[in-house]
Order: sequence, then structure tokens, then C-alpha cells
Amino acid sequence: MDSTTESNYPLGGEIQLDEQGELLLSGHSASGLIARFGSPLVVLLEEVIRRNCREYRRHLESYPRSRVYYAGKAFLTTGFCRLLEQEGLGLDVVSAGELHTALCAKFPPADILLHGNAKGEGELKRAIEAGVGRIAIDNFAEIEVLERLTSELDKTIKVLLRLAPGVRPETHEYVQTGQVDSKFGFNMAGGAAEEAVRRVLAVPALELVGLHCHIGSQILDLAPFEVAAKAMMEFYARMKNTLGAPLDELNLGGGLGIRYQAGDNPPSIAEHLERLCRTVLDAAREQKVEPPVLIDEPGRSIVGEAGVTLYTVQGVKRIPGVRNYASVDGGMTDNPRYALYQARHPVLLANRAGEQADDEPWSISGKCCETGDMLIHDAMLPALQPGDLIAMFCTGAYTYSMASNYNRVPRPAVVLVGPGRASLLARRETPEDVARLDQIPDWLEHLP
Amino acid sequence: MDSTTESNYPLGGEIQLDEQGELLLSGHSASGLIARFGSPLVVLLEEVIRRNCREYRRHLESYPRSRVYYAGKAFLTTGFCRLLEQEGLGLDVVSAGELHTALCAKFPPADILLHGNAKGEGELKRAIEAGVGRIAIDNFAEIEVLERLTSELDKTIKVLLRLAPGVRPETHEYVQTGQVDSKFGFNMAGGAAEEAVRRVLAVPALELVGLHCHIGSQILDLAPFEVAAKAMMEFYARMKNTLGAPLDELNLGGGLGIRYQAGDNPPSIAEHLERLCRTVLDAAREQKVEPPVLIDEPGRSIVGEAGVTLYTVQGVKRIPGVRNYASVDGGMTDNPRYALYQARHPVLLANRAGEQADDEPWSISGKCCETGDMLIHDAMLPALQPGDLIAMFCTGAYTYSMASNYNRVPRPAVVLVGPGRASLLARRETPEDVARLDQIPDWLEHLP
Repeated sequence: MDSTTESNYPLGGEIQLDEQGELLLSGHSASGLIARFGSPLVVLLEEVIRRNCREYRRHLESYPRSRVYYAGKAFLTTGFCRLLEQEGLGLDVVSAGELHTALCAKFPPADILLHGNAKGEGELKRAIEAGVGRIAIDNFAEIEVLERLTSELDKTIKVLLRLAPGVRPETHEYVQTGQVDSKFGFNMAGGAAEEAVRRVLAVPALELVGLHCHIGSQILDLAPFEVAAKAMMEFYARMKNTLGAPLDELNLGGGLGIRYQAGDNPPSIAEHLERLCRTVLDAAREQKVEPPVLIDEPGRSIVGEAGVTLYTVQGVKRIPGVRNYASVDGGMTDNPRYALYQARHPVLLANRAGEQADDEPWSISGKCCETGDMLIHDAMLPALQPGDLIAMFCTGAYTYSMASNYNRVPRPAVVLVGPGRASLLARRETPEDVARLDQIPDWLEHLP
Repeated sequence: MDSTTESNYPLGGEIQLDEQGELLLSGHSASGLIARFGSPLVVLLEEVIRRNCREYRRHLESYPRSRVYYAGKAFLTTGFCRLLEQEGLGLDVVSAGELHTALCAKFPPADILLHGNAKGEGELKRAIEAGVGRIAIDNFAEIEVLERLTSELDKTIKVLLRLAPGVRPETHEYVQTGQVDSKFGFNMAGGAAEEAVRRVLAVPALELVGLHCHIGSQILDLAPFEVAAKAMMEFYARMKNTLGAPLDELNLGGGLGIRYQAGDNPPSIAEHLERLCRTVLDAAREQKVEPPVLIDEPGRSIVGEAGVTLYTVQGVKRIPGVRNYASVDGGMTDNPRYALYQARHPVLLANRAGEQADDEPWSISGKCCETGDMLIHDAMLPALQPGDLIAMFCTGAYTYSMASNYNRVPRPAVVLVGPGRASLLARRETPEDVARLDQIPDWLEHLP
């Protein structure tokens, strides 16, 4: 397959080719899925998602007490919440929209954790009323709002404090989050974190159960996780010892990278968790504290490689000596990662994958009237023609969840597929949906 | 005002301060608008939009025959279509969603032009059935589809051909569109454009009325427009003379820049159009052809400076010696231009604009759990505190139209304001709206 795939995407498992060279996803042909659900289409492989969920739980089993919260920002729908609940994961939400989605799916509120650097008072109130299990406090203003709200509602709430441990992993600067210069959380350096612990301890309705950090996203090196875990454990023990903080949980966020390109060599979930557990246990022994409940918050590493987006080529443009373009029926509206992060996803000609690559590379352009709407430049693919199906891999995370209606392009459908079954997680948006928020001011209602 | 505004935003006209230093938008106080319509809020100044529309029409009056199509991709709602119709503008749409919006508003189909590099067959069919005035053909595959559709529907349709004249203006590379290496249109160089003319002329149901180009967006220098216009006129005349093409329209697209920062010095609409008209008239004389109907397609220069987005500060984080952050209730979800193009918009503290700037700059961070979700770094503003209102200017174009539900954050409301009146163009999205496309596969409906 090497000659026809961008970055030699490893076929196998749920992703296969049939004898005619057509892509099969959990046994469903790409063209069959398009015929049934339309194009473009986001396909999520149920078995991959479940396997990843189970890997996270299994490799934490040897650690005394642990929990896994899925990071909803990567991809979230009501049906996906059900799947997470079946797999025994908790859920990290970051907005009223994500919270509402979880509650719609009857996800157990006690297993929900609310994050966010700019939570609104309405969001906090809704979370307290719903009985979410944890709120991760990000800044001093939030402590004051929570003090007032818990008093008004006559409730108590378990809280974590989000800290910035001062770790800067090697990843795109947009997704580094744990460094000193970060919008998120209380910095350990300079004393803000300690001050936050003091202030929360002074509010009886806020039960400070743990500390949280998240150093970034798409991290391919385990060392920064270890550095962050050690720094967090040192602070955790110090707060217990010096302030008597009743801390019992250490939430180290998510951030494990996945394999987008041939050069990417992410650690496995097993390697990541084994090293994390060992680091925290060693640190607990060193700091002479009981090992805390260890919490991980994976998103991308659960759902990223489970996603395949299928597009249909609408037109091609060959510019001899310059570049070949194939324009498809989606683009930055359903996957803005190339425009935002210059992220390359592997691509394959889904309907004729077995054919020889063209002499010149092909660039896949999106549908929007903007030159920046590209899905990839210069991929090795067979010569493309209108009607061809393009498969783009590793699109489960941060694609549909970031989708827009730019150019008023409706969002694609999302289908969950397993062996012998396929059903929508999100229906296709329609032009009517796209205009549904529009209103006409009365003075424009009747034209002169 | 200089000490408190990022990039010295020129107050005046519809944008004023009251005696207490609060921002007034067409006489409406920022806090009053937030109290009535909620936060965050996109405010569009009706008078600015109408003035820009009229400037475009007025400065084309001296040219024999002309038309202005507004580029819907910049911002489009049903109510906005009404306003455009009142002002006598046509509409450039690029998708079934934009077309549906226009038809919902009962915009005259004959005044609609359909663009797009990846139009779907369904979109083309809908456009033909609706009777849109023009379709701009982008690639060879589209000629074949239109030949078949017009035959099936027994219709004829007026078409333009989109050409790439090989002009590369100085602007962000994402919004350069007229260069040789472009996904858009038929290249003049290499003969593709001429071949396209021949093929369209061979299809009786396709009435080739004109040529189109669009060299890019946010262009601050008039020279590239002139170069493109000359190249287009040379080709226009040659196709009339050598192939007998019944061309009568020259559509030079849009792209005129606006003033985002103090250093930006865009030409006025008057300067732009005067030079464009002169160039085309001179070229027509030189080429010995009747001056074509001259068409311009402004988007940003109609609505960009008419937009002001209001945000509420939720939390602040001071990192001594490093940076001050103020997190607001919106961000890349309602304005991704900073994340995508590193675009700086002027900002103002809307509720206390008269106060002295802080010693250190402030960075305005968005609500999403992503470091890349910033609205601006290092702006000179008074010391910020929770509850403050931030006004970000020049946000009428390519902000709301590019908005996403990342983190499942609902999109803000958009309000049209004029003296003594304010009414929604788009209602605020709710968490319920955000989850409305979700479906639960039957095998996940009932958990074991």
C-alpha cells in the first residue's frame, strides 16, 4: 500500500481494503457508507474507541485508586456519552453545552467534572444544581462566585484546583497549556497556587478534594508528564503537611499524542500509564503521603485514531509544473486542523486504493471560498477524478468538535460503525438548520 | 483615547463614548445592549453598513453599466439579505446554505450569483431550479454537470467563468486567491481558461455572459487590482474577437481591505472604484471593445468595520513579570481570526474606556480549553477585573460567519443597531441547540 498512501498509514484491524482495493471500515465499504449516510461523512470505529477506553482502565488497575475522565472537547455527542458510560469512564466537560449533552444522555452527574478558564456564573450554577461530581477551579474570581452560589443554593461542592506547574512540552504552541505563561490555572511559581489553596480552605461549602494540571495536547514524549507529576506531588504533599489540606486526588489531565504521520511515534497507553503510576507512587513514597487517587483525562488518544472522514471529489484542477488540486465537498468547516495547526492527516483514495500513485502529488482542497481551506498539500495519491472518495484518517478528535458553518456549509453526519452495525451519532445538518438562528428585524420585515 | 486603546481605534461617527467613559454604539450603551441581549454579543452598526453599500453604488454611477454583489461569506443572515435588497445590491452565495438563506429572505433569485470551487450537484440543481441569475463555473467537471442538469431540467442558465489571472497580492497567504498556484478557477496561463471558453460555448444551454476573477482578500494596495483588471480585459477582448464569445460582463471579485490596525491604511471605496473603472475603461478603449458591465463583490469592506463584539471578563490571571490574562466568555468560537491568521483587532475596555492604561499590557483569552484560544496578546488597557466589558472592533466580517461550537460553546447573538432601534439578526444559540443534531444508536439507547 505504500505507493498510494500519504505517510504509509498502517491498514489493519478495523481498517482494511477489499479485493477491489476499496476501503472497508469495520467491514463496511466506504462507498456503501456514503450511499447510506451521504457525503462528506465522519466515521467513528466503535471497536477502536472501546479498546482505547479499556486500555486506559486496564493499565490503571495495578495502581491503588484511579479514575479516567474522557475529555469531551475532543468529540462529544449524547450517544458517545452512552458509550463512555458503558465503558466505565467519567466525563470532563468545559461548557454548558457539553454539560447539557451529558445530562441529555443521562450520564451520571457524579461522574462529571467541570473544567474551564472562563466559566460563566450560569454554567457554575447549572453544574451545582445538576450535582456534578467535581468542579476544577481555574482562578480567584471563580472561588468568590462559587462561595456565593453554594451559599445561595445551600449546597456543597467538591472542587479541584487547576495549577500551572511550569512545564512546557514539545507540541504546537496552541496546545501547550502547563507552562508559566498560560491563561490556565494558578501558577505554582510565585505563590498563586498556595494562596488559592488557602482561600478555598476558608470556604466551608467548597470541599477541596484534589489538584489538577494539564500540560498540553498531542504530546509524544513521556518526560514532561513525569516532570509535571513530580512537581504536582511535591506541592500536593506540601499543602497536606503545611496547610492540612484534605487532598486525596491528583488529576494529571490528558495530552497523550497519537500517530498522525509516519514520523510520529507516540508512546502506547500502557507505556504512558505505567510510567505515570510509577512516578506518582515513587513521589508519594518520597513525600511520605498515601498515594492519591490518580486521574487521567484522555480525549485525543481515545477517539482520534477511531475517526475516518470520507469526502467526495467535486472537481480537479491540474496546473502543469505547479500543482494538482482536487476539491472535495468538505474542508476546514469539518476539519480546521490543517488551517489552524498545519496538521497533516494520512489520506487514501478510498474507492481505488490499490492503484498506482500519480507521478505528481495531489493537494486536497476544501469547499470554502478561501485559499486557506485546504485539507492537505502534496499527498501521493493515484490520479484523482470527480466522484472519487477520499478517506482522511485520524480525524476522530478535534475535527467535528471544532466544525463551523463557514460559507454556511452544513456540518457532516457522524456515524458510529462496528461489525454488522452502523448508526448515526449526529445527523447531517441541513441548509434549513444553518439558517435557523436568523431573525429579521421588524423594520426590515416589509420592504418599501 | 490613545492611552487606553489598542492601536488607537478611531472613535467617531456611530462609535462614541459617553461622559462616564462608556462605549456607545449608535447611541446604545454597551452595558445596556448586554443587559438586553446577553453576552457575548456581536453588534452590527446599520448606518455603517448602509453607508458602505451606498458608497459602492455611488462610485460606480459614472461607469456606464455596473452591479455590486455582496459576498455573503463575510456575514449573512436572512435579515441581512433584506438590508442588502433595500440597498440595491446583488448577492454572491457559495453554498446551499447561503442560497437557502437568501431564498428564505425572499431575495430576488435573479440578483444571486453562485460561486464555489467544489459545488455539489445538489447545489447546482437547487440554484438552477431557484432561477439564480448567474453561476460562476470553476472547473471542467462543473461544465459537464451543468450540461447534464440543464438538459434534465430543460433550463438555460447564464454563466461566468472563474479565471486565475496569475496575480499574487500582498496579504495573508490563506486569502490570496488569484495566483497561478490556486485551487480556484481556470488558469489563463497554459490555456485552461481558453479551453473552458470553448467548452462552454459548445453547450447551448449555458449562456456565457462574462468572466470572473478574485485575487484575494484584505488587500491594501490598489496595484494588484489594476494588474488583474488589465489581464482580464485582454483575455475578455481576445475571447470576443477570436472565438466570438458573447461576453458582456467583467466581474473582478472583491478583496478591498479595511483598517484593522493603526498601521493599516486601506484605500477608500471611492479610490478603489475610481481606479478600477478607469483601468477597465482604458483597457476597453485599447482593446477596442465596448466597456463590459463592471461587477464588484465586496464583503469585508461592507460589513467588517460595522461590527463590534462585546465580551464579559470572567476571570483574570496576573503572572508578575510574565503576562496578564483576562478570560472572557467568547473567543475563537466566535472569532477565529487570531487563531487562523494572527489577526489583531482593536480592543477597548467598554465600561471604563476613559481610565488610564495599566502599566503592563493585557492579553484577552477565550473560553475554550485550548491555549490557542486567544483574542489578542499584549493590548494596552486599564487593569481589568471580572465583570468588565471588552469591545473588540472591526469584527463584522469573517467572525460570526466562521463561528464554531468548539467545546460545545453556543454561538453569540447578533444584533443590528441604529439610532433608536436594535433588533436581532441572529438569536443566541442555546446548549439545547448545540446538541440538536445528536442521535443515540439503538444499541446504546438502553444501557445494560
